[in-house]
Parts: sequence; C-alpha cells; structure tokens
Amino acid sequence: MIKINENFLKLQAGYLFPEISRRVNTFKDQNPQADVIKLGIGDVTKPLVPAIVEAMKSAVDDMGTAEGFHGYGPEQGYGFLAERIIECDYKSRGVSLDKSEIFISDGSKCDTGNLQEIFGTDNVVAVQDPVYPVYVDTNVMAGRTGQAGKDGKYEGIVYMPCTAENGFAPELPSEQVDMIYLCYPNNPTGSVADKASLKKWVDFARDNKALILFDAAYETFIQDDSIPHSIYEIEGADEVAIEFRSFSKSAGFTGVRCAFTVVPHKLKAYKSSGEPVEVNPIWNRRHCTKFNGVSYVTQKGAEAAYTPEGQKQIQEVVQYYMNNAAVIRESLSGLGYSVYGGENAPYVWLSTKDGMSSWEFFDLLLEKAHLVGTPGAGFGAAGEGYFRLSAFNELDTVKEAMRRIAKIS
Amino acid sequence: MIKINENFLKLQAGYLFPEISRRVNTFKDQNPQADVIKLGIGDVTKPLVPAIVEAMKSAVDDMGTAEGFHGYGPEQGYGFLAERIIECDYKSRGVSLDKSEIFISDGSKCDTGNLQEIFGTDNVVAVQDPVYPVYVDTNVMAGRTGQAGKDGKYEGIVYMPCTAENGFAPELPSEQVDMIYLCYPNNPTGSVADKASLKKWVDFARDNKALILFDAAYETFIQDDSIPHSIYEIEGADEVAIEFRSFSKSAGFTGVRCAFTVVPHKLKAYKSSGEPVEVNPIWNRRHCTKFNGVSYVTQKGAEAAYTPEGQKQIQEVVQYYMNNAAVIRESLSGLGYSVYGGENAPYVWLSTKDGMSSWEFFDLLLEKAHLVGTPGAGFGAAGEGYFRLSAFNELDTVKEAMRRIAKIS
Repeated sequence: MIKINENFLKLQAGYLFPEISRRVNTFKDQNPQADVIKLGIGDVTKPLVPAIVEAMKSAVDDMGTAEGFHGYGPEQGYGFLAERIIECDYKSRGVSLDKSEIFISDGSKCDTGNLQEIFGTDNVVAVQDPVYPVYVDTNVMAGRTGQAGKDGKYEGIVYMPCTAENGFAPELPSEQVDMIYLCYPNNPTGSVADKASLKKWVDFARDNKALILFDAAYETFIQDDSIPHSIYEIEGADEVAIEFRSFSKSAGFTGVRCAFTVVPHKLKAYKSSGEPVEVNPIWNRRHCTKFNGVSYVTQKGAEAAYTPEGQKQIQEVVQYYMNNAAVIRESLSGLGYSVYGGENAPYVWLSTKDGMSSWEFFDLLLEKAHLVGTPGAGFGAAGEGYFRLSAFNELDTVKEAMRRIAKIS
Repeated sequence: MIKINENFLKLQAGYLFPEISRRVNTFKDQNPQADVIKLGIGDVTKPLVPAIVEAMKSAVDDMGTAEGFHGYGPEQGYGFLAERIIECDYKSRGVSLDKSEIFISDGSKCDTGNLQEIFGTDNVVAVQDPVYPVYVDTNVMAGRTGQAGKDGKYEGIVYMPCTAENGFAPELPSEQVDMIYLCYPNNPTGSVADKASLKKWVDFARDNKALILFDAAYETFIQDDSIPHSIYEIEGADEVAIEFRSFSKSAGFTGVRCAFTVVPHKLKAYKSSGEPVEVNPIWNRRHCTKFNGVSYVTQKGAEAAYTPEGQKQIQEVVQYYMNNAAVIRESLSGLGYSVYGGENAPYVWLSTKDGMSSWEFFDLLLEKAHLVGTPGAGFGAAGEGYFRLSAFNELDTVKEAMRRIAKIS
C-alpha cells in the first residue's frame, strides 16, 4: 500500500501567493470592471533589457545549428557564467571563490527549498519572523517540525521575531539551533544587515557549529555602500554559510529562471558520531542527481547581464524600481503610516492603521482601492499588523496606487 | 551542530555519467590526438528544428517588450502548452486528461527524482534492473534503503531483473512493493511493453494498492503501432499511475529543459491509518513550493513542437536517429553480437563477448576503438555483461563507430 508522506498533511492552507491570487480572482469575477493594481507578489514588471534579449536570441540561433547546438550542459552550469559571477559579484568585493563552489540553478525558490534535503531531519531550524514561506514549508515537508499551532507557528521551529521594536533585526537565539535562515536585504521587511550585524551571526554559527542559509536574492537593490552584498564579506563566513543569489530581481528573470548557490569547500556538517563531512560534494551529488542544468539560452542571457552594456541597462531598471520605492515611502509617511524598508530593497513594509489585522487591511485595499499588496501575517505571526508593498510596477501606476490609498486613509 | 543527512553517505561512488566522463577525460588527456566517438550518454546531437527556433526567438522578443513580457508564470506551466499536450499526446490516443493533472517542469530527471518525496519513507521501492540510476539514488537519499552490498544493490529495494532470459520483461514481484518504477520504452535496454504486459502491471498495482511511476520519456521513438505510448491507455491506470514525459529526446530539448508529469485526480495514497488521500493536490503543493515554473521562452518552444510544421520537422529527426539505431543493430548482429532494443527506442543493448564485464568492454572500446558507450553494470547488477549504445549521432559517425568495432571484434 502506497503511503503518503504525512508531513505534507501538516502544511497549512494555501501557500501565501496562491491564496492572494484566489482572493484577487474572486474579486475580479465579482467586479469585472475594476482596474486592479498589483503591488503584491514580488514579480518584476520591466521587460528584459536589450543586451539580454540580443544574447538570448543569438543563443537560440546557436541551438538551431549543428556547430552551435548545446545538449546537456554541466549540471552545475556553464563555466562562462560561473566565471562572470566569481569576477563581478565576488572578486570585486574582495571575496575569492572557486568555480566548483558555484551551483547555477533555475531559481532561488528551488535552491532554498531543496538545500535542506542534504541535512539531517533532526536539525533545529531557526527563521526570521516574518519570513519567506518557502523556508518554513520545505522544512515542514521534510519532517523537521511538528504540527502548526493556532498562531500558524510549527512546533520545533525557532521563530526569531523581527518587528519595529527591535528594528527588524532578530536577537541571537538562546536555544540550540542548527540551520539558520537569514534573508538580507530582507523579504518581506526590506531591512538590511550591516557588517557588524552579520559578523554577530557568523560568530554565533562558528561557536555553535550551526549553518547559515543566507538568501541574498535582493542584493542588487543595496544603495548604501557600507552594507555587505555577500555574507562572505565577513571573515570566516565560508566555514558556516551557504549563499543564495538570483537573476530574478536583478535582471528581470522571474519568467526566465536562473539563480545560483554558493557552497564553499570549507563548509562542514557532521555525522551523528561528530565526524565532519565536507558539504560541497554532498550538494554536488544531490544537484547532479536531481537536476539537469539550466537552459543554455538562459545562461547566455545571464552572462549578458555582466557585460558593461548589460550592467548599465539593468542598473537603470533597478534605479527605476528604487524610485518607485521612494515614492511609496514618502506617500505613506505623509499619510501617517509607519514605513520601513524600501531604501536598500524593493519592498516597503508598513504598519496597518487602527489595529487592523493584515488580512483585513488586504481586503480593505482590494475592495476600496482595488490595490493588491501582501498581508504581513502571510509571512508569519510577527508580520501581523504589517503589510508589504512592492516597488515593481510603472511609476504612474505606483502614483495612482498612492492616490487611492490617500482617498481611503 | 549541523548534522548531515547520512543517507547521502550510503551512495556509491559516482553517478554513472560523471564516472564515464572522468574515464573519457583521462583517456583524452593521455591521447590528445584520438578522435573519440560518443555513443554513450543519451544526449541528442541534432540542432533544434526551425519551427522551435523561430518560436523561441519570437518569445525572447516578447520578453523584451512591455506588452509581451512574462514574469512568474503558473508553477504548473502555461495553459497554452498544457492544452497542446492534452490534445496531441493524450486525446489523440483516447486518453482524456484535465489541465490540472499536468505539471510542466524543467526535466524528467528532476521529476522522477523529486516525486518520491511526497510519499512515506516506509514504502518499499521496486525497480527494473538494469535501471536509470536516478530512481534508485533518489530513494537512497530519501532513506528508503539500507546500505549497498558488494553487488551494488541497496538493502530494502526490490530489484526486478530484466535479462535476455526473460525478454527484458520483469516478473511481477512476489514480495510486497509500494512504489514501482517502470520505464518504457526502456532505458537502457530499449525494450517496450505491449498492452497485455502493461495491463498486468496496472492490475497488480490495483490489487496491491501500489503506485506505478511510469517513465515514458522515450515514447516518441515507438514505431510499432500496437505499443501504447501512455500507461493511461490501459483502463484503470489513472487510479494507480503517475506518468513522466519529456521534450528532451522528442524535440531535442536536453539543453533547453522541458518535461511534464501527469498526476491524475483519481490517484490515491494512504495515511498510516489507511485513510485515502488524493495525491494530485499534494504534488501540486510540493511543485508550487519548491519550483517556480519553466522559462516562458522554453514553453513557447515546446508549444511549437506540436504545430504541424514542428511535428513534421521533429519526426524527421526521430527517423534519422532510428535509422542510426537500425545501422547499429545490423552491424553488431553481423559481427555476432546478441543485440536487443533499437526498434522502438534510441538505445541498442548488446551482450559483451567472451565473458567480458561491461566496464572491461567499456575500457576496451574506449582504448582500442576510441568509442564511448555505456557499461550495462552502471545501470545495475543485472546489466552486467551488457552494454548500451545510443543512436544519437551523425549517420557517418555511427558508421565509422561500427567499422571500428568490426576491426577489434
């Protein structure tokens, strides 16, 4: 008899974004005339830049010729892309990496979801709260948690509250934790971590032989030069941290699919006997067995993001979004909302007013302003009373959204 | 302390194809002048057909415009592609499926590797032997096995020998099994299953509440009209089977990455209490949480494979490879080898001569004929004494390979 993995039955209703889609679709069915503005899901809106379009078309042409055809590529990605990553993303910031430490993939959602698999199910997971739901849900699926309580928290997970009271910077856990998910610039709060703050985490992980899973999918949006883009800018981080990076937000690849993960050779995990094991070859084995590489066309597009022309073009797009974020920040502050983030991240995080719950605020904005945002509670218990607006849209649309909020505020 | 998943430490040295690459690279380093012919890994060699190239370039152009840009798509894939799949691959063969039963992905390796995750680790796995290594290795990683023995077999897995003696058709297991991996047309033996043979498996699965994981990645190569392309051509299969399909071999997508998995709504798995659970929403939850959809450009390319023009062009390529297979079959038969497969599959399976082991035969062909094939033992204990040659190459190259084998035979 085929038995289901009962861990999956612990999962709570609807992954956040499908639930938002459901509510929006219901609203649209009932209000077909409504012009709904979406500042909800973190999807980019600007088209691919010309340098990337040209590179991808040229790669498709390659694929149509006997000489230029590429079949199975290396599961870890092509050297041409790994070299640009090492040179432009890391060497330029004083971090030295080997190609064998880079694993190119089809997305950071996949990577952050899959990586836990190579670690024992008896590890204790710690997450920032609010948190990107994938970190939690994939650990529930793996069996690292008990059931969810009424507050949505799963037994066995250590939730580290990030609220206005602590400046959205979690305290070091007082209990034993083994796998610590950190996301900076943070989704959803838009907060960032400076060097001292990251050093505190690296030191903690080294002292406790813990692992940091560092999600830097939004590093492109950092405007403040003093903020690290990579956790490896902190000495010793290569002994305790895995880093996730993505082209989704930096190069507009949400529909193209390319990301990468860094697993340094110095990183060790431990057998139950206490004997250390190098993590890199274990992840390599997993990656080669369950993944078959990223489309050649996609990797050529990602490579083009590193050319001087590509860099200039995508930076213009990033600045466009950051200007939107500034408009959102200013407008909402002017309306008396408490506003956070949006300065080094494409997300603005705000407190709802009048003690509204975040889903109540979601429904209010949808029904009265025809505006879709993301309720903070969808990211965790400590997100209750907060709301996320994304800067990914046209400036005129963002301004219209702000006018609509002004009307109902 | 971060603990490794010790199941990964049970895995035996090198996944098959990396091991082949290692030996070939060593040989090439020592013999830089050698003109090595590869009939080893099952990678296609013909470029993408024009209909697909045009569709992909047009999709890249879309992505460069505000109107045509596509960000995150549905995790399950775009409706435009699912509709073509249902119409052309299934309805045409009398099988009716709903769009919500189709999950488009970036590869069948990923799908066959990931799918086991939604089932309990206490299920007993049965595989054909020889077998595509991914089915076994991913179950080892998940903890459904003990250690490997000297013969390479893992404790706890039921291996079903497929040899010349039983016509490469395994007997029904006499022990309890819960997850049965079947691959038809078979990789590596090139054998196929007729309706009666598949019905036997479907009836067995229904009688035992077992699950069939049916890998039909090579269905395009079926030439004999009486052979089913889908397991759903057998009545009742939708209650017990998941089917995997791929564009890798049919449309030359090994470097483009697109596949799909069918999970019928009628399929049930069971809680330990015996209570049935519908599998489709559980896989949907897994797919949406750990995967973010296939590139829009890739899906537009896959859609073009279903146009009349695309069909005609890819069928020409398929026939080209099948002609290669016929050349290999005839040449080797003429040299006195026992030859199997290659009639409804792009793989020819042969017995080595003079009692050579399959890795000895591999080394002999590499060193004396500068020819790379795949040793049968790499696919499992029952593959010992056999060897796989793939039909994916230029006809002239295939002929040259046959001349070289003739010289050393």
